[in-house]
Amino acid sequence: MSMVVIESGGVCSAKGFKASGVHCGLRRNRTRKDLALIVSDVRAAAASVYTQNVVKGAPILVTQAHLADGYAQAILCNSGNANTCNADGISVANAMCAFLSRDSHIAEDDIIIASTGVIGQPLPLEPIDRGMKGLVQALSYAGSDDAAAAIMTTDTVQKHVAVQFELDGKPCVVGGIAKGSGMIHPNMATMLAFVTTDVAITPAMLQMATRAVTQDTFNMVSVDGDTSTNDMLSVMANGLAGNTPIESTGPAYDAFIQALRYVCTHLAKAIARDGEGATRLVTCIVQGAQDDDSARTLAKSVISSSLVKTAIFGADANWGRILCALGYSGVHFNPWGVSVRFSSAAGSIDVCVKGGSLAFDEDLAKKILLEKEVCMHIEMQDGTACATAWGCDLTYDYVKINGDYRS
Amino acid sequence: MSMVVIESGGVCSAKGFKASGVHCGLRRNRTRKDLALIVSDVRAAAASVYTQNVVKGAPILVTQAHLADGYAQAILCNSGNANTCNADGISVANAMCAFLSRDSHIAEDDIIIASTGVIGQPLPLEPIDRGMKGLVQALSYAGSDDAAAAIMTTDTVQKHVAVQFELDGKPCVVGGIAKGSGMIHPNMATMLAFVTTDVAITPAMLQMATRAVTQDTFNMVSVDGDTSTNDMLSVMANGLAGNTPIESTGPAYDAFIQALRYVCTHLAKAIARDGEGATRLVTCIVQGAQDDDSARTLAKSVISSSLVKTAIFGADANWGRILCALGYSGVHFNPWGVSVRFSSAAGSIDVCVKGGSLAFDEDLAKKILLEKEVCMHIEMQDGTACATAWGCDLTYDYVKINGDYRS
Repeated sequence: MSMVVIESGGVCSAKGFKASGVHCGLRRNRTRKDLALIVSDVRAAAASVYTQNVVKGAPILVTQAHLADGYAQAILCNSGNANTCNADGISVANAMCAFLSRDSHIAEDDIIIASTGVIGQPLPLEPIDRGMKGLVQALSYAGSDDAAAAIMTTDTVQKHVAVQFELDGKPCVVGGIAKGSGMIHPNMATMLAFVTTDVAITPAMLQMATRAVTQDTFNMVSVDGDTSTNDMLSVMANGLAGNTPIESTGPAYDAFIQALRYVCTHLAKAIARDGEGATRLVTCIVQGAQDDDSARTLAKSVISSSLVKTAIFGADANWGRILCALGYSGVHFNPWGVSVRFSSAAGSIDVCVKGGSLAFDEDLAKKILLEKEVCMHIEMQDGTACATAWGCDLTYDYVKINGDYRS
Repeated sequence: MSMVVIESGGVCSAKGFKASGVHCGLRRNRTRKDLALIVSDVRAAAASVYTQNVVKGAPILVTQAHLADGYAQAILCNSGNANTCNADGISVANAMCAFLSRDSHIAEDDIIIASTGVIGQPLPLEPIDRGMKGLVQALSYAGSDDAAAAIMTTDTVQKHVAVQFELDGKPCVVGGIAKGSGMIHPNMATMLAFVTTDVAITPAMLQMATRAVTQDTFNMVSVDGDTSTNDMLSVMANGLAGNTPIESTGPAYDAFIQALRYVCTHLAKAIARDGEGATRLVTCIVQGAQDDDSARTLAKSVISSSLVKTAIFGADANWGRILCALGYSGVHFNPWGVSVRFSSAAGSIDVCVKGGSLAFDEDLAKKILLEKEVCMHIEMQDGTACATAWGCDLTYDYVKINGDYRS
């Protein structure tokens, strides 16, 4: 399949999607947008995956109810407050949907609602009520960046991407935006990611594709091991590309899932790269594991280890910590079959062969680990399964950012 | 049962135990001891629990073999090198035992052997060979502190404790030493802890007591979520107290386990308090959980959360992160039944009631969280089980210490 990345693509790259982002007053800083909206010109098939945290944000429960029929037309999201652990959370989320419906004529139960920010503080409705009309009026086919900006919390950069491919000779697009950047250790979805596509696909097939792709993309990222209460990936597919609707698995479904995987992988890596305080994007590739689940668990254990993360921050090729993290992952494997290699733009170096030490050039290793993108290749002797996980280093700034997040 | 804490007690507080610690040359810094020895005057019942990490240090495998018969007479331990992920690890550990046997006439298979330090670097035998005679000659009934110093790595303080109690009118003692301070998230044992007692007890009952106590003490500590490859708790009971040997459960066993629990709890808390970079000891008490396992998992999830740990460092009463960490622990519970209270020497404050926010005095909360010992009380509505876990804050110094541990 040929697939082209769209320069500066996002949630408005697919046909028939508008977006906007404004400052309504949830944040004190008037230069920070805090309310985002994404709207499809027509009702769209919609699918979501959500956090597995037992403590779930109220917006997640409301979205689950609204997506019960498999369709949606809009995504409304605020930042600055998670609307979680609030006794009135559900009614606040419902009120937000009612405001949008009032000012746009989109049905309330066609709205995907999301919130991100501090947990356990009442979310004031007044600024949202007041700002809704402006948010709707600002909707534009060029509004993806505004929406991407409005969902940011401690993120330092906007995260967006889109790709184009063909189905039945028709150009199709999948694009998305996301926000990280702390409390990131997703389980079934990441903090917040919104994907739009003009592909025609049934809700059931869209849900199947979303679940499948999440497993290898957002669920393979960790910034700090903390699974958020508000994780959600939502995908809207409005069918305006005009392809024969995808109703079952087959070549069209495969092409779609490939595009969706590209978009989600890009956003997942962008979240890891922009992890709180991070200076490096760390990729861990596990090969030769017994089965897919083992490979995923092993790769994620390594990128989640505080000791591996601080070693990468210090550009210290302390591979024993990698072996240690593999060892406590819960997966059984042959430790004497494990080899480890570091690589980056500065080169590649073997540091452990068959579970044991190997004389290596420490200066070269340091040079490799000082690059902005670092890869750990782990080869095992237990089978043929492989997996990739993404993370970042653990730095002084992570401690700084989180030592006083609320003030 | 009446139990008295012995001032400056350690592994030589029980009758018939000598110890020593010397610098043999494994560490470059000549002022740092790196070889420790604990010897019982007579063969002792012995029990150990070990790391559940799949990657196990060679000393653990050798110790498992030596303790197969339930008896030991000595504990030999080096710091500066973990003797793990080395192809010749087993033979190196065996050689260390042979050196001690040569210079002391203790049988090789009565030696508990341990190593702690960097993983995956060959452990040179020559300094140990050369230093063994001096180590044995230095053995003394006042040598506990020397041994405690010789097993330290990034620890900043020695960890030791002893208590006295009575069985059959005979004074009995349980004492121990331990080391932390990074790669601490024990699973069945902690980094290294050695306990000695003069109580008469069968190997089987000693093993049963050791396992039982480990679950609520060392296994409830986390510094950084990384389960070491070399975790081990070993207990030697030489019977010199002269009590009727403990051969089954009953009042004597209960008294012994109470003393053992006190010693292990003290050492576990000492490890948490001296966690790498830590400025605060954090205790998390969960009450009202469905069952013991759930209570333990919930408490440990909270003290392991990077976001909770950085919030404590910043003295920020960000209780939403506690709810979040409970929620992703894997335990099912009623989130609307959770209440959270912080306490310390500076007072006590409720911050969350029935899963929701509560107006509280932020200044008082900050004052409470600025104390050196901070407690989080979590009350749930799911049952009557409770558990306590210990951890520490996540600080700039943790990142500094681990950014370049090997150099």
